[in-house]
Amino acid sequence: LHYNLIEMTDVPTFADIEAAAVRISGHAIETPLLENPVLNARVGGRVLIKPEVLQRTGSFKFRGALNRILVIPEAKRRNGVVAFSSGNHAQGVAAAAALLGMPAVIVMPRDAPHMKIAGTRSHGAEIVFYDRATDDREAIAARLCEERGATLVKPFDDPFIVAGQGTIGLEIARAAQSRGIAIDTVLVPAGGGGVVSGIALALSGTSPNTKVISVEPENFDGMRRSLASGARTRAAGGAPSIADALMALMPGEIPFAISRDRLSAGITVSDSALGAAVAFAARHLKLIVEPGGAAALAAVLSGAFRSGGSTIAIVLTGGNCDIETVANACAEAREP
Amino acid sequence: LHYNLIEMTDVPTFADIEAAAVRISGHAIETPLLENPVLNARVGGRVLIKPEVLQRTGSFKFRGALNRILVIPEAKRRNGVVAFSSGNHAQGVAAAAALLGMPAVIVMPRDAPHMKIAGTRSHGAEIVFYDRATDDREAIAARLCEERGATLVKPFDDPFIVAGQGTIGLEIARAAQSRGIAIDTVLVPAGGGGVVSGIALALSGTSPNTKVISVEPENFDGMRRSLASGARTRAAGGAPSIADALMALMPGEIPFAISRDRLSAGITVSDSALGAAVAFAARHLKLIVEPGGAAALAAVLSGAFRSGGSTIAIVLTGGNCDIETVANACAEAREP
Repeated sequence: LHYNLIEMTDVPTFADIEAAAVRISGHAIETPLLENPVLNARVGGRVLIKPEVLQRTGSFKFRGALNRILVIPEAKRRNGVVAFSSGNHAQGVAAAAALLGMPAVIVMPRDAPHMKIAGTRSHGAEIVFYDRATDDREAIAARLCEERGATLVKPFDDPFIVAGQGTIGLEIARAAQSRGIAIDTVLVPAGGGGVVSGIALALSGTSPNTKVISVEPENFDGMRRSLASGARTRAAGGAPSIADALMALMPGEIPFAISRDRLSAGITVSDSALGAAVAFAARHLKLIVEPGGAAALAAVLSGAFRSGGSTIAIVLTGGNCDIETVANACAEAREP
Repeated sequence: LHYNLIEMTDVPTFADIEAAAVRISGHAIETPLLENPVLNARVGGRVLIKPEVLQRTGSFKFRGALNRILVIPEAKRRNGVVAFSSGNHAQGVAAAAALLGMPAVIVMPRDAPHMKIAGTRSHGAEIVFYDRATDDREAIAARLCEERGATLVKPFDDPFIVAGQGTIGLEIARAAQSRGIAIDTVLVPAGGGGVVSGIALALSGTSPNTKVISVEPENFDGMRRSLASGARTRAAGGAPSIADALMALMPGEIPFAISRDRLSAGITVSDSALGAAVAFAARHLKLIVEPGGAAALAAVLSGAFRSGGSTIAIVLTGGNCDIETVANACAEAREP
């Protein structure tokens, strides 16, 4: 009961991120902070790369999911967890539950990428499919929770999820500081805003002069619009973006409450810039990055964000796409 | 003159690796030591991953090339360097020369992978193509050196090259020790044997209980045969392996002089095991690894090496292949 109350109302603090870091330590991977001379030369500045594609389950989502599940009271754990997700959150929840020996049910759209369905299944989760056009995934998840006494693990609008994702910000700040590097700006992809808000909260406590900017696909720019208007504002939406992970129309309440005063800007990138970034990551960074995970890289490569010689960090949030997506991106974004 | 003498005769010592580490520091990337729970589960033990695909130019070759070029006497530098290579060494030499503002000529087979030719060109090197069937690449390189007063940078049979590659071993040992991990065995792909011998030399000085094993493609198992016979022995060769980087028929003199007493074994992997490893790396490690670079991973995944629950480290030596190679490997190595 106590935790449900927290879940619904509280905005996390910097201390919650520090607590999350302790909680998930030893399970979540502390991903490295990389640098690539080809990228630096292309951008004309220094770019630090935080590759969450190397995180357990191939995306940052494991951090928040594990942090959330670890605060479920002992007595409720055996009833398991339920989550709805197009993919990366599903895998994060499934893997975190499996680690703790808890059952997990994932409500997934029938058209989710094959790689994400297979990844979720590989962690032993039960999958309940729904139709994006006709079904209400939240209602399905709520019914499952009621039937089984299970705990709903939301994708972003939860203080423990946001705090868990925020541990990325702690790691970036500490790695940079240990090398004597001052980061001017961190660019982070945004869907519901969980990871960008968590990182902004972490940096406000560890590196207050570092700016944080969200990057969204065109037409799915809820965070950009919300920052501009000062209140949660819905994006236009429309034709699906190749960034299937970033198709939320609006930031969550908790993410936006954090982001409103802490993000410097919200910018957008086109699908073709996302594809070019996926190709660049494969060719030059030797990393498999899914289109949504490449949004911050797309921003610096396309000129949507101009570093002006400053030191920036980008988060590559996930790498769960079929290899054909990468091969197609490389075919379309030919290099000389 | 002094350096030419050393080049022809001397076997490097552990101190040469320590000197190389100082020399290349700040230019070569200290690659992270990663771990992946899917790989650990698949192998049934702990596998540390040294991803040299994240090294400058996408392979370990930059380390040795830079270390070698940095000892060229000031007066000879303006005449530049010459190298013959099927690809990764070419890029390493070209990038290292470019970094020091020196001209580089690379003698490459006409059928080298597109990605490796483009990579070499991107560093501003001049490329001279030869025909594998009819031309003598060493003669071409020797003539170029004579004409230009340039320095030949050999791919592996050079103490400074071997010492440079050995810095990988120092980094593995130090990263493991800082985390309190004792590594039982390190598996390293072998072509001419430069990197495996360098790593073996480094570990003999920093972690003497760690075994080192070379991994070669079937039919290109010169190191395995040489270790078995106690003298440099030629492999059968034959149809090209998909591991274009590992098609040397025999280890170099200096690499074998080091390896003879320091490698525990030489093992081989099939082309289909190499392809499966390339696919595994893309799917689960989110890394682009070329077939030759995946030989050590192939050894642990295929069972050619059985860890028996021990702690091992594998070096992913390079990631310079066209994306089609990875896509084809994924298509052929389907997972459930």
